[in-house]
Amino acid sequence: MLYIIGLGLYDEKDITLRGMQALKNCKKIYAEFYTNLWHGNIENLEKMSGNKIKILNRGIIEETPEEFLNFAKTEDTALLIPGDPLAATTHIDLVLRAEKQGIPVKIIHSSSIFSAVGETGMQIYKFGKTTSIVFPEKNYFPESPYDALCSNLKMNLHTLFLLDVKYDESRYMTVNNGIEILLQIEKKRAAGIFTEKTLCVGCARLGGEEEIKYGTAKELMRHDFGAPPHALIVPAKLHFVEEEALLRYKIQ
Amino acid sequence: MLYIIGLGLYDEKDITLRGMQALKNCKKIYAEFYTNLWHGNIENLEKMSGNKIKILNRGIIEETPEEFLNFAKTEDTALLIPGDPLAATTHIDLVLRAEKQGIPVKIIHSSSIFSAVGETGMQIYKFGKTTSIVFPEKNYFPESPYDALCSNLKMNLHTLFLLDVKYDESRYMTVNNGIEILLQIEKKRAAGIFTEKTLCVGCARLGGEEEIKYGTAKELMRHDFGAPPHALIVPAKLHFVEEEALLRYKIQ
Repeated sequence: MLYIIGLGLYDEKDITLRGMQALKNCKKIYAEFYTNLWHGNIENLEKMSGNKIKILNRGIIEETPEEFLNFAKTEDTALLIPGDPLAATTHIDLVLRAEKQGIPVKIIHSSSIFSAVGETGMQIYKFGKTTSIVFPEKNYFPESPYDALCSNLKMNLHTLFLLDVKYDESRYMTVNNGIEILLQIEKKRAAGIFTEKTLCVGCARLGGEEEIKYGTAKELMRHDFGAPPHALIVPAKLHFVEEEALLRYKIQ
Repeated sequence: MLYIIGLGLYDEKDITLRGMQALKNCKKIYAEFYTNLWHGNIENLEKMSGNKIKILNRGIIEETPEEFLNFAKTEDTALLIPGDPLAATTHIDLVLRAEKQGIPVKIIHSSSIFSAVGETGMQIYKFGKTTSIVFPEKNYFPESPYDALCSNLKMNLHTLFLLDVKYDESRYMTVNNGIEILLQIEKKRAAGIFTEKTLCVGCARLGGEEEIKYGTAKELMRHDFGAPPHALIVPAKLHFVEEEALLRYKIQ
Protein backbone atom coordinates (compact mmCIF):
# COMPACT_ATOMS: atom_id res chain seq x y z
CA MET A 1 0.00 0.00 0.00
CA LEU A 2 1.15 3.54 -0.80
CA TYR A 3 -0.02 6.10 1.73
CA ILE A 4 0.09 9.68 0.53
CA ILE A 5 -0.13 11.73 3.70
CA GLY A 6 -0.73 15.44 4.12
CA LEU A 7 1.60 17.25 6.52
CA GLY A 8 -0.87 20.12 6.79
CA LEU A 9 -0.25 23.83 6.88
CA TYR A 10 2.75 24.57 9.05
CA ASP A 11 4.87 22.06 10.96
CA GLU A 12 5.05 18.47 12.26
CA LYS A 13 2.08 19.07 14.58
CA ASP A 14 -0.24 19.53 11.60
CA ILE A 15 -0.36 15.91 10.55
CA THR A 16 -3.56 14.16 11.69
CA LEU A 17 -3.70 11.28 14.17
CA ARG A 18 -4.75 9.13 11.19
CA GLY A 19 -1.64 10.23 9.30
CA MET A 20 0.66 9.58 12.27
CA GLN A 21 -0.85 6.14 12.82
CA ALA A 22 -0.19 5.22 9.17
CA LEU A 23 3.39 6.54 9.44
CA LYS A 24 4.08 4.34 12.43
CA ASN A 25 2.92 1.29 10.48
CA CYS A 26 4.88 2.06 7.32
CA LYS A 27 8.16 0.34 6.61
CA LYS A 28 9.56 3.14 4.45
CA ILE A 29 8.81 6.84 4.68
CA TYR A 30 9.56 9.41 2.00
CA ALA A 31 8.77 13.11 1.91
CA GLU A 32 8.83 15.94 -0.60
CA PHE A 33 9.12 19.64 0.22
CA TYR A 34 9.27 21.18 -3.24
CA THR A 35 5.54 21.95 -3.59
CA ASN A 36 5.44 24.19 -0.51
CA LEU A 37 7.62 25.44 2.31
CA TRP A 38 7.27 23.34 5.45
CA HIS A 39 8.35 24.77 8.81
CA GLY A 40 8.50 21.45 10.64
CA ASN A 41 11.41 19.53 12.05
CA ILE A 42 12.17 16.25 10.26
CA GLU A 43 13.95 14.77 13.30
CA ASN A 44 10.86 15.35 15.45
CA LEU A 45 8.73 13.64 12.86
CA GLU A 46 11.19 10.71 12.75
CA LYS A 47 11.09 10.45 16.52
CA MET A 48 7.28 10.52 16.63
CA SER A 49 6.91 7.94 13.88
CA GLY A 50 9.85 5.77 14.94
CA ASN A 51 11.04 5.72 11.34
CA LYS A 52 13.72 7.33 9.18
CA ILE A 53 12.43 9.75 6.52
CA LYS A 54 14.06 10.08 3.11
CA ILE A 55 13.53 13.33 1.23
CA LEU A 56 12.78 12.99 -2.49
CA ASN A 57 13.23 15.75 -5.04
CA ARG A 58 10.88 16.66 -7.86
CA GLY A 59 12.84 14.67 -10.45
CA ILE A 60 12.51 11.42 -8.53
CA ILE A 61 8.80 11.79 -7.77
CA GLU A 62 7.74 13.06 -11.19
CA GLU A 63 10.09 11.11 -13.43
CA THR A 64 11.71 8.13 -11.70
CA PRO A 65 9.57 7.07 -8.74
CA GLU A 66 10.33 3.37 -9.38
CA GLU A 67 12.49 2.85 -6.31
CA PHE A 68 9.87 3.92 -3.86
CA LEU A 69 6.97 2.48 -5.84
CA ASN A 70 8.79 -0.86 -5.73
CA PHE A 71 8.74 -0.81 -1.94
CA ALA A 72 5.06 0.03 -1.98
CA LYS A 73 4.38 -3.15 -3.97
CA THR A 74 5.23 -5.33 -1.01
CA GLU A 75 5.46 -3.07 2.06
CA ASP A 76 3.40 -0.22 3.47
CA THR A 77 5.17 2.89 2.20
CA ALA A 78 4.40 6.54 2.91
CA LEU A 79 4.98 9.73 0.97
CA LEU A 80 4.60 12.90 3.04
CA ILE A 81 3.46 16.07 1.30
CA PRO A 82 3.06 19.59 2.76
CA GLY A 83 -0.59 20.72 3.00
CA ASP A 84 -3.31 18.42 1.66
CA PRO A 85 -1.78 15.91 -0.80
CA LEU A 86 -3.86 16.39 -3.93
CA ALA A 87 -4.53 20.11 -3.56
CA ALA A 88 -1.42 20.67 -5.67
CA THR A 89 -2.00 19.13 -9.08
CA THR A 90 1.37 17.40 -9.49
CA HIS A 91 0.79 14.27 -7.41
CA ILE A 92 -2.18 12.77 -9.21
CA ASP A 93 0.22 11.39 -11.84
CA LEU A 94 1.98 9.44 -9.12
CA VAL A 95 -1.34 8.02 -7.89
CA LEU A 96 -2.27 6.90 -11.42
CA ARG A 97 1.19 5.42 -11.97
CA ALA A 98 1.03 3.45 -8.71
CA GLU A 99 -2.46 2.13 -9.40
CA LYS A 100 -1.42 1.01 -12.90
CA GLN A 101 1.21 -1.12 -11.21
CA GLY A 102 -1.45 -2.65 -8.99
CA ILE A 103 -0.39 -0.74 -5.87
CA PRO A 104 -3.34 0.35 -3.76
CA VAL A 105 -3.14 4.03 -2.78
CA LYS A 106 -4.64 5.66 0.30
CA ILE A 107 -4.76 9.44 0.64
CA ILE A 108 -4.70 10.85 4.18
CA HIS A 109 -5.84 14.46 4.17
CA SER A 110 -4.76 17.38 6.30
CA SER A 111 -5.23 21.14 6.52
CA SER A 112 -4.82 23.29 3.43
CA ILE A 113 -4.75 26.94 2.41
CA PHE A 114 -7.97 26.35 0.42
CA SER A 115 -10.09 26.26 3.56
CA ALA A 116 -7.66 27.97 5.97
CA VAL A 117 -8.35 31.30 4.20
CA GLY A 118 -11.63 31.17 6.13
CA GLU A 119 -9.53 32.55 8.99
CA THR A 120 -9.67 35.99 7.35
CA GLY A 121 -13.42 35.96 7.94
CA MET A 122 -14.06 35.84 4.20
CA GLN A 123 -16.66 33.30 3.09
CA ILE A 124 -15.23 30.34 1.19
CA TYR A 125 -18.47 30.21 -0.83
CA LYS A 126 -17.69 33.60 -2.24
CA PHE A 127 -14.31 32.68 -3.73
CA GLY A 128 -14.05 32.11 -7.46
CA LYS A 129 -11.28 30.31 -9.33
CA THR A 130 -7.96 30.17 -7.47
CA THR A 131 -4.91 31.22 -9.48
CA SER A 132 -1.13 31.28 -9.11
CA ILE A 133 1.33 34.12 -9.58
CA VAL A 134 4.69 32.88 -10.83
CA PHE A 135 8.06 34.62 -10.83
CA PRO A 136 8.42 36.30 -14.25
CA GLU A 137 11.32 35.11 -16.37
CA LYS A 138 12.97 36.52 -19.44
CA ASN A 139 10.45 35.24 -21.95
CA TYR A 140 7.77 34.13 -19.53
CA PHE A 141 5.43 36.57 -17.83
CA PRO A 142 2.00 34.93 -17.66
CA GLU A 143 -0.90 37.31 -17.20
CA SER A 144 -3.37 34.56 -16.29
CA PRO A 145 -3.68 35.66 -12.62
CA TYR A 146 -4.90 39.06 -13.82
CA ASP A 147 -7.42 37.39 -16.12
CA ALA A 148 -8.66 35.20 -13.27
CA LEU A 149 -9.09 38.30 -11.11
CA CYS A 150 -11.08 40.05 -13.85
CA SER A 151 -13.47 37.19 -14.36
CA ASN A 152 -13.91 36.54 -10.63
CA LEU A 153 -14.64 40.23 -10.00
CA LYS A 154 -17.14 40.24 -12.83
CA MET A 155 -19.04 37.52 -10.93
CA ASN A 156 -18.51 39.34 -7.62
CA LEU A 157 -16.23 36.57 -6.32
CA HIS A 158 -13.07 36.85 -4.21
CA THR A 159 -9.74 35.71 -5.68
CA LEU A 160 -7.11 33.66 -3.87
CA PHE A 161 -3.63 34.00 -5.38
CA LEU A 162 -1.18 31.25 -4.53
CA LEU A 163 2.40 32.46 -4.76
CA ASP A 164 5.29 30.78 -6.58
CA VAL A 165 7.64 28.35 -4.85
CA LYS A 166 11.08 27.85 -6.40
CA TYR A 167 12.36 25.25 -4.01
CA ASP A 168 15.69 24.61 -5.76
CA GLU A 169 16.59 28.29 -5.49
CA SER A 170 15.00 28.77 -2.03
CA ARG A 171 12.82 31.50 -3.53
CA TYR A 172 9.32 31.86 -2.18
CA MET A 173 7.15 34.63 -3.54
CA THR A 174 6.01 37.20 -0.97
CA VAL A 175 2.74 39.14 -0.84
CA ASN A 176 4.85 42.18 -1.82
CA ASN A 177 6.21 40.43 -4.95
CA GLY A 178 2.74 39.25 -5.89
CA ILE A 179 1.26 42.74 -5.66
CA GLU A 180 4.13 44.18 -7.68
CA ILE A 181 3.58 41.65 -10.46
CA LEU A 182 -0.16 42.36 -10.60
CA LEU A 183 0.59 46.11 -10.78
CA GLN A 184 2.99 45.47 -13.68
CA ILE A 185 0.30 43.58 -15.57
CA GLU A 186 -2.17 46.37 -14.78
CA LYS A 187 0.28 48.85 -16.31
CA LYS A 188 0.21 46.91 -19.60
CA ARG A 189 -3.52 46.27 -19.59
CA ALA A 190 -4.66 49.58 -18.09
CA ALA A 191 -8.08 48.09 -17.26
CA GLY A 192 -8.17 49.62 -13.79
CA ILE A 193 -8.75 46.21 -12.21
CA PHE A 194 -5.78 46.17 -9.84
CA THR A 195 -4.27 49.49 -8.79
CA GLU A 196 -2.32 50.77 -5.79
CA LYS A 197 -5.69 51.62 -4.24
CA THR A 198 -7.15 48.12 -4.58
CA LEU A 199 -8.01 46.63 -1.18
CA CYS A 200 -6.22 43.31 -0.63
CA VAL A 201 -5.59 40.79 2.10
CA GLY A 202 -2.07 39.47 2.69
CA CYS A 203 -1.67 36.19 4.59
CA ALA A 204 1.56 34.69 5.88
CA ARG A 205 2.08 31.28 7.53
CA LEU A 206 -1.64 30.50 7.97
CA GLY A 207 -2.08 27.79 10.58
CA GLY A 208 1.31 28.57 12.14
CA GLU A 209 2.82 31.86 13.30
CA GLU A 210 0.33 33.59 11.11
CA GLU A 211 -0.05 37.18 10.10
CA ILE A 212 -3.01 38.61 8.19
CA LYS A 213 -3.13 42.23 6.96
CA TYR A 214 -5.88 44.11 5.16
CA GLY A 215 -5.25 47.35 3.28
CA THR A 216 -4.60 48.88 -0.10
CA ALA A 217 -2.08 47.27 -2.45
CA LYS A 218 0.23 50.19 -1.74
CA GLU A 219 -0.04 49.77 2.03
CA LEU A 220 0.48 46.00 1.91
CA MET A 221 3.45 46.36 -0.43
CA ARG A 222 5.30 48.29 2.30
CA HIS A 223 4.56 45.70 4.97
CA ASP A 224 7.05 43.00 5.96
CA PHE A 225 5.11 39.75 6.35
CA GLY A 226 8.14 37.75 7.48
CA ALA A 227 8.86 34.16 6.47
CA PRO A 228 6.90 32.41 3.68
CA PRO A 229 4.58 30.80 2.72
CA HIS A 230 2.45 33.82 1.82
CA ALA A 231 -0.85 34.13 -0.03
CA LEU A 232 -2.70 37.11 -1.45
CA ILE A 233 -6.45 37.65 -1.66
CA VAL A 234 -8.30 40.30 -3.61
CA PRO A 235 -11.85 40.59 -2.29
CA ALA A 236 -14.89 41.29 -4.40
CA LYS A 237 -17.71 43.21 -2.73
CA LEU A 238 -17.67 42.25 0.95
CA HIS A 239 -20.59 41.13 3.08
CA PHE A 240 -20.76 43.32 6.19
CA VAL A 241 -19.66 40.44 8.44
CA GLU A 242 -16.68 39.80 6.15
CA GLU A 243 -15.85 43.49 6.33
CA GLU A 244 -16.11 43.53 10.12
CA ALA A 245 -13.84 40.48 10.30
CA LEU A 246 -11.27 41.99 7.92
CA LEU A 247 -11.15 45.30 9.79
CA ARG A 248 -9.47 43.39 12.64
CA TYR A 249 -6.50 43.12 10.31
CA LYS A 250 -6.53 46.67 8.93
CA ILE A 251 -3.02 47.90 8.37
CA GLN A 252 -2.10 51.01 10.40
CA MET B 1 -8.02 31.60 25.26
CA LEU B 2 -10.70 30.10 23.02
CA TYR B 3 -9.40 27.36 20.73
CA ILE B 4 -11.60 26.57 17.76
CA ILE B 5 -10.39 23.20 16.57
CA GLY B 6 -11.19 21.35 13.37
CA LEU B 7 -12.12 17.69 13.72
CA GLY B 8 -11.38 17.11 10.06
CA LEU B 9 -13.23 15.03 7.51
CA TYR B 10 -14.32 11.78 9.10
CA ASP B 11 -13.69 10.61 12.66
CA GLU B 12 -11.63 11.22 15.82
CA LYS B 13 -8.42 10.29 13.99
CA ASP B 14 -8.74 13.35 11.72
CA ILE B 15 -7.82 15.92 14.33
CA THR B 16 -4.22 17.13 14.01
CA LEU B 17 -1.50 16.59 16.62
CA ARG B 18 -1.68 20.37 17.18
CA GLY B 19 -5.42 20.10 17.83
CA MET B 20 -5.01 17.16 20.21
CA GLN B 21 -2.26 18.95 22.13
CA ALA B 22 -4.51 21.99 22.59
CA LEU B 23 -7.39 19.74 23.72
CA LYS B 24 -5.23 18.14 26.39
CA ASN B 25 -4.36 21.59 27.77
CA CYS B 26 -7.91 22.93 27.77
CA LYS B 27 -9.95 22.99 30.96
CA LYS B 28 -13.31 22.82 29.20
CA ILE B 29 -14.14 21.19 25.88
CA TYR B 30 -17.27 21.78 23.85
CA ALA B 31 -18.24 20.42 20.44
CA GLU B 32 -20.89 21.03 17.82
CA PHE B 33 -22.06 18.53 15.23
CA TYR B 34 -24.83 20.46 13.50
CA THR B 35 -22.75 21.85 10.62
CA ASN B 36 -21.74 18.42 9.34
CA LEU B 37 -22.09 14.75 10.12
CA TRP B 38 -19.15 13.40 12.11
CA HIS B 39 -18.46 9.65 12.20
CA GLY B 40 -16.18 9.73 15.23
CA ASN B 41 -16.62 8.37 18.72
CA ILE B 42 -16.92 11.00 21.43
CA GLU B 43 -15.77 8.62 24.18
CA ASN B 44 -12.55 7.88 22.26
CA LEU B 45 -11.92 11.58 21.89
CA GLU B 46 -12.56 12.08 25.63
CA LYS B 47 -10.15 9.26 26.45
CA MET B 48 -7.43 10.64 24.16
CA SER B 49 -7.78 14.17 25.48
CA GLY B 50 -8.35 13.20 29.12
CA ASN B 51 -11.30 15.58 29.23
CA LYS B 52 -15.10 15.47 29.18
CA ILE B 53 -16.74 16.92 26.05
CA LYS B 54 -20.03 18.81 26.17
CA ILE B 55 -22.07 18.98 22.97
CA LEU B 56 -23.60 22.35 22.15
CA ASN B 57 -26.52 22.88 19.80
CA ARG B 58 -26.89 25.61 17.21
CA GLY B 59 -29.01 27.81 19.48
CA ILE B 60 -26.35 27.96 22.17
CA ILE B 61 -23.46 28.67 19.82
CA GLU B 62 -25.23 31.17 17.61
CA GLU B 63 -27.44 32.92 20.13
CA THR B 64 -26.38 32.33 23.72
CA PRO B 65 -22.70 31.35 23.83
CA GLU B 66 -22.15 33.30 27.09
CA GLU B 67 -21.63 30.27 29.30
CA PHE B 68 -18.77 28.87 27.34
CA LEU B 69 -17.33 32.27 26.40
CA ASN B 70 -17.22 33.03 30.13
CA PHE B 71 -14.94 30.04 30.71
CA ALA B 72 -12.73 31.15 27.86
CA LYS B 73 -12.18 34.48 29.63
CA THR B 74 -10.16 32.84 32.36
CA GLU B 75 -9.41 29.27 31.25
CA ASP B 76 -8.26 27.63 28.03
CA THR B 77 -11.47 26.44 26.41
CA ALA B 78 -11.97 24.48 23.20
CA LEU B 79 -14.79 24.26 20.71
CA LEU B 80 -14.56 21.29 18.33
CA ILE B 81 -16.05 21.60 14.87
CA PRO B 82 -16.30 18.96 12.10
CA GLY B 83 -14.04 19.69 9.10
CA ASP B 84 -12.01 22.91 9.07
CA PRO B 85 -13.55 25.42 11.54
CA LEU B 86 -14.14 28.48 9.36
CA ALA B 87 -14.95 26.70 6.11
CA ALA B 88 -18.60 26.87 7.16
CA THR B 89 -19.60 30.51 7.44
CA THR B 90 -21.50 30.31 10.70
CA HIS B 91 -18.63 30.37 13.19
CA ILE B 92 -17.01 33.69 12.30
CA ASP B 93 -19.70 35.46 14.36
CA LEU B 94 -18.55 33.53 17.41
CA VAL B 95 -14.94 34.56 16.77
CA LEU B 96 -15.92 38.22 16.50
CA ARG B 97 -18.09 37.99 19.61
CA ALA B 98 -15.26 36.41 21.62
CA GLU B 99 -12.70 38.97 20.48
CA LYS B 100 -15.06 41.83 21.37
CA GLN B 101 -15.06 40.47 24.92
CA GLY B 102 -11.27 40.51 24.94
CA ILE B 103 -10.92 36.72 24.59
CA PRO B 104 -8.03 35.73 22.34
CA VAL B 105 -9.05 33.13 19.73
CA LYS B 106 -6.82 30.53 18.09
CA ILE B 107 -8.04 28.53 15.10
CA ILE B 108 -6.55 25.04 14.64
CA HIS B 109 -7.18 23.80 11.13
CA SER B 110 -7.85 20.32 9.83
CA SER B 111 -8.87 18.57 6.63
CA SER B 112 -11.85 19.81 4.65
CA ILE B 113 -13.96 18.88 1.65
CA PHE B 114 -12.64 21.99 -0.15
CA SER B 115 -9.25 20.41 -0.79
CA ALA B 116 -10.21 16.75 -0.28
CA VAL B 117 -12.10 16.84 -3.60
CA GLY B 118 -8.61 16.68 -5.12
CA GLU B 119 -8.92 12.95 -4.46
CA THR B 120 -11.18 12.68 -7.52
CA GLY B 121 -8.19 13.72 -9.64
CA MET B 122 -9.90 16.97 -10.56
CA GLN B 123 -7.74 20.08 -10.28
CA ILE B 124 -8.69 22.40 -7.44
CA TYR B 125 -7.59 25.34 -9.58
CA LYS B 126 -10.30 24.54 -12.06
CA PHE B 127 -13.17 24.79 -9.58
CA GLY B 128 -15.32 27.90 -9.61
CA LYS B 129 -17.66 29.12 -6.89
CA THR B 130 -18.84 26.41 -4.49
CA THR B 131 -22.56 26.29 -3.87
CA SER B 132 -25.03 24.46 -1.61
CA ILE B 133 -28.15 22.51 -2.47
CA VAL B 134 -30.76 22.74 0.28
CA PHE B 135 -33.83 20.60 0.90
CA PRO B 136 -36.75 22.36 -0.79
CA GLU B 137 -39.55 23.44 1.50
CA LYS B 138 -43.08 24.56 0.85
CA ASN B 139 -42.29 28.14 -0.09
CA TYR B 140 -38.55 27.81 -0.38
CA PHE B 141 -36.89 26.23 -3.38
CA PRO B 142 -33.74 28.24 -4.11
CA GLU B 143 -32.37 27.90 -7.62
CA SER B 144 -29.01 29.45 -6.75
CA PRO B 145 -27.08 26.16 -7.18
CA TYR B 146 -28.28 25.98 -10.77
CA ASP B 147 -27.21 29.60 -11.35
CA ALA B 148 -23.78 28.88 -9.86
CA LEU B 149 -23.44 25.87 -12.19
CA CYS B 150 -24.37 28.00 -15.22
CA SER B 151 -21.83 30.70 -14.47
CA ASN B 152 -19.07 28.24 -13.58
CA LEU B 153 -19.65 26.29 -16.80
CA LYS B 154 -19.56 29.52 -18.79
CA MET B 155 -16.02 30.06 -17.44
CA ASN B 156 -15.17 26.37 -17.98
CA LEU B 157 -14.91 25.76 -14.24
CA HIS B 158 -15.97 22.72 -12.21
CA THR B 159 -18.73 23.09 -9.59
CA LEU B 160 -18.68 21.59 -6.12
CA PHE B 161 -22.15 21.23 -4.59
CA LEU B 162 -22.28 20.89 -0.82
CA LEU B 163 -25.40 19.08 0.30
CA ASP B 164 -27.82 20.15 3.01
CA VAL B 165 -27.49 19.00 6.61
CA LYS B 166 -30.61 19.10 8.79
CA TYR B 167 -29.05 17.91 12.01
CA ASP B 168 -32.18 18.26 14.17
CA GLU B 169 -34.12 15.97 11.85
CA SER B 170 -31.14 13.66 11.13
CA ARG B 171 -31.61 14.43 7.44
CA TYR B 172 -28.48 14.57 5.31
CA MET B 173 -28.87 15.20 1.61
CA THR B 174 -27.58 12.42 -0.64
CA VAL B 175 -25.98 12.70 -4.08
CA ASN B 176 -29.24 11.20 -5.38
CA ASN B 177 -31.35 13.95 -3.75
CA GLY B 178 -29.00 16.63 -5.04
CA ILE B 179 -29.22 15.39 -8.63
CA GLU B 180 -33.00 15.16 -8.39
CA ILE B 181 -33.26 18.76 -7.21
CA LEU B 182 -31.00 20.01 -10.02
CA LEU B 183 -33.13 18.09 -12.54
CA GLN B 184 -36.26 19.73 -11.11
CA ILE B 185 -34.75 23.17 -11.55
CA GLU B 186 -33.66 22.22 -15.08
CA LYS B 187 -37.29 21.29 -15.83
CA LYS B 188 -38.39 24.81 -14.92
CA ARG B 189 -35.52 26.58 -16.61
CA ALA B 190 -35.14 24.30 -19.66
CA ALA B 191 -31.68 25.71 -20.37
CA GLY B 192 -30.16 22.28 -21.01
CA ILE B 193 -27.46 22.88 -18.39
CA PHE B 194 -28.13 19.86 -16.20
CA THR B 195 -29.89 16.86 -17.74
CA GLU B 196 -29.98 13.12 -17.08
CA LYS B 197 -27.03 12.84 -19.47
CA THR B 198 -24.82 15.34 -17.63
CA LEU B 199 -21.62 13.71 -16.39
CA CYS B 200 -21.21 14.13 -12.63
CA VAL B 201 -19.05 12.91 -9.80
CA GLY B 202 -20.62 11.70 -6.58
CA CYS B 203 -18.48 11.57 -3.43
CA ALA B 204 -19.38 9.98 -0.12
CA ARG B 205 -17.43 10.09 3.16
CA LEU B 206 -14.25 11.59 1.64
CA GLY B 207 -11.31 11.00 3.96
CA GLY B 208 -13.07 8.04 5.63
CA GLU B 209 -14.77 4.98 4.13
CA GLU B 210 -15.01 6.89 0.92
CA GLU B 211 -16.76 6.13 -2.32
CA ILE B 212 -16.39 8.13 -5.51
CA LYS B 213 -18.47 7.44 -8.63
CA TYR B 214 -18.36 9.06 -12.06
CA GLY B 215 -21.20 8.76 -14.55
CA THR B 216 -24.27 10.44 -15.96
CA ALA B 217 -26.78 12.05 -13.61
CA LYS B 218 -29.15 9.20 -14.43
CA GLU B 219 -26.56 6.54 -13.60
CA LEU B 220 -25.50 8.21 -10.35
CA MET B 221 -29.10 8.69 -9.27
CA ARG B 222 -29.54 4.92 -9.23
CA HIS B 223 -26.41 4.32 -7.17
CA ASP B 224 -26.50 3.82 -3.39
CA PHE B 225 -23.61 5.82 -1.92
CA GLY B 226 -24.26 4.67 1.65
CA ALA B 227 -23.94 6.87 4.72
CA PRO B 228 -23.52 10.65 4.47
CA PRO B 229 -21.83 13.10 4.18
CA HIS B 230 -22.08 13.23 0.41
CA ALA B 231 -20.98 15.86 -2.11
CA LEU B 232 -21.71 16.30 -5.80
CA ILE B 233 -19.42 17.70 -8.49
CA VAL B 234 -20.34 18.72 -12.01
CA PRO B 235 -17.18 18.95 -14.10
CA ALA B 236 -16.58 21.50 -16.82
CA LYS B 237 -14.37 20.39 -19.72
CA LEU B 238 -11.86 17.93 -18.30
CA HIS B 239 -8.11 17.96 -18.78
CA PHE B 240 -7.00 14.53 -20.06
CA VAL B 241 -5.30 13.69 -16.75
CA GLU B 242 -8.48 14.61 -14.89
CA GLU B 243 -10.43 12.41 -17.27
CA GLU B 244 -8.01 9.50 -16.80
CA ALA B 245 -8.28 9.90 -13.02
CA LEU B 246 -12.10 10.03 -13.11
CA LEU B 247 -12.39 6.97 -15.32
CA ARG B 248 -11.12 4.94 -12.34
CA TYR B 249 -14.48 5.73 -10.75
CA LYS B 250 -16.69 5.15 -13.81
CA ILE B 251 -19.96 3.61 -12.78
CA GLN B 252 -20.63 0.17 -14.29
